[in-house]
Amino acid sequence: MSGTEFAIIDRYFARLGDFPSGRVPLGPGDDCAILNLSPGEQLCVSTDTLVEGVHFPVGASGGIVAHRSLVANLSDLAAMGAAPLGFVLALTLPRVDEGFLRAFSLRLGELVRTYDVPLVGGNLARGQLAVNITVFGTVPRGSWLARSGAAVGDDIYVSGTVGDAGEGLERWHDATDALARRYLFPVPRLALGQGLLDLASAAIDISDGVVADLGHICAASDVAATVMLDSVPVSAALSSSLGEHKARLAGLSSGDDYELCFTSSPSHREAIHRLGESLSLPLTKIGNIRAFDGGGRVSVVTGDGAKIELSREGYEHFDDP
Amino acid sequence: MSGTEFAIIDRYFARLGDFPSGRVPLGPGDDCAILNLSPGEQLCVSTDTLVEGVHFPVGASGGIVAHRSLVANLSDLAAMGAAPLGFVLALTLPRVDEGFLRAFSLRLGELVRTYDVPLVGGNLARGQLAVNITVFGTVPRGSWLARSGAAVGDDIYVSGTVGDAGEGLERWHDATDALARRYLFPVPRLALGQGLLDLASAAIDISDGVVADLGHICAASDVAATVMLDSVPVSAALSSSLGEHKARLAGLSSGDDYELCFTSSPSHREAIHRLGESLSLPLTKIGNIRAFDGGGRVSVVTGDGAKIELSREGYEHFDDP
Repeated sequence: MSGTEFAIIDRYFARLGDFPSGRVPLGPGDDCAILNLSPGEQLCVSTDTLVEGVHFPVGASGGIVAHRSLVANLSDLAAMGAAPLGFVLALTLPRVDEGFLRAFSLRLGELVRTYDVPLVGGNLARGQLAVNITVFGTVPRGSWLARSGAAVGDDIYVSGTVGDAGEGLERWHDATDALARRYLFPVPRLALGQGLLDLASAAIDISDGVVADLGHICAASDVAATVMLDSVPVSAALSSSLGEHKARLAGLSSGDDYELCFTSSPSHREAIHRLGESLSLPLTKIGNIRAFDGGGRVSVVTGDGAKIELSREGYEHFDDP
Repeated sequence: MSGTEFAIIDRYFARLGDFPSGRVPLGPGDDCAILNLSPGEQLCVSTDTLVEGVHFPVGASGGIVAHRSLVANLSDLAAMGAAPLGFVLALTLPRVDEGFLRAFSLRLGELVRTYDVPLVGGNLARGQLAVNITVFGTVPRGSWLARSGAAVGDDIYVSGTVGDAGEGLERWHDATDALARRYLFPVPRLALGQGLLDLASAAIDISDGVVADLGHICAASDVAATVMLDSVPVSAALSSSLGEHKARLAGLSSGDDYELCFTSSPSHREAIHRLGESLSLPLTKIGNIRAFDGGGRVSVVTGDGAKIELSREGYEHFDDP
């Protein structure tokens, strides 16, 4: 590591490991960081790389890149029902851009404090702009939310509204636009995930779109899903932009919202309603889990009974019955 | 994630998570992996990115890239005295190169089995060839080897021989050359690190060179070091290639050997000797820790009393007394 790299770390990243969680007896600066788990906990880990021009637009500010990178990872913790413990950052930069680094560091610091998730180590390398984060979290032993637990008859829910971020990507230059902000500054549903530990049978975060991600739950659980198009929760901003029907279709097929999609036994409906109220977060039932019949994993049904088959990749074909 | 990426993961990486350690109740394929720690353990984490053309030569085979990437990380565990638990791999590829991926996966699989360190998760992205690995390990609670424990009067040791990899880089095309193999296929000193938990006061792995890395120990411990040039252990291959004097200087200033440099109280000399014998690994005392006098952190003294000052960056100046 060169002198410049030490200076960058010292100026922009050293303080992101200062935090009061008391779970990091040794932070950045040694060969490894040391983290404490409690005896009743299991470790959750996830890693994501965001590459310029692929996962964020060329020219995005350091704040946007930092936010989307860390939240993509925190959202994976949320989908397991995990509480954040810390993260490591591997940053690849084409050159030292002080403005980018300052904005990156400022936003990262805000998230570190908001979610009590310290930066415990990292790596700087020179190359195409890319951000890799590996995040650590904990769950009470044996209680994580896997993708594989969905059972026939379960309800299917999504949190918040979906489709906003996909439309927001088109307008990302305008950080005052409500839809753009959903793309630029997603919120990880950590409290929801932890609240679902005793309620959900399976969960995933929506990064690729409801149909694609619900498809992962169905494949892992060897079941299928029917989604009612008219139940898909979309924002007023998206509806007024696309019209209601197109907004709901966009909500099913576009990604990057980082809401949670989860399944739950109908016996938990009241508890899930209360959880949503306590978090001031709408939790909307959008369909049901059914037995897999060898066809598509996820079927979408319109209000007049028409059936839309969508594959993981998006629309496969459109059937009018 | 596209269909191609799923196919790559399935073909080349899925089986690297199959292993008998029993510490990974949930491996790759969900939002997070789940790892078990025992109540008396603390978690060690480290992350390293290797970029083509910077950390490995352009045109290096998948096997070389896999080996150097994982061992660079395992070596950080070794330097903490940690036992491997698992790792996540974030691979960035410019295109799908089956030959590269096959060689990468084969070598990674050998290391997974050799060091009982399963692949528990990962990420594939398209971009400039780069490999980021975040590795997890465990230490008995409170017993890690930090850089900050070196005390005045401690002995300084290095394991094995140093300088080989730096010279080997020049010859990396010839994988039969003994020095080239030290560069291409370094060995992480995991058993040594764990054996040093009760013996060493500080430790680091030699990635930047003995002087640079011993300098990190000295800075973290606020001490200084005197190294006896004639004690620096070099291989017969390096000596016959460079001559003995130049070989020892190369041993101090060139990196990539992934040997351990550690400090220890003189009261442990006999125990350290026995540890080296039990591992069939030479552990050579190369100097002593002294008080920091505001000058250079690491001084090198030749047999005739001449003093060579070296900075972290390499040679700063050369003083004949």
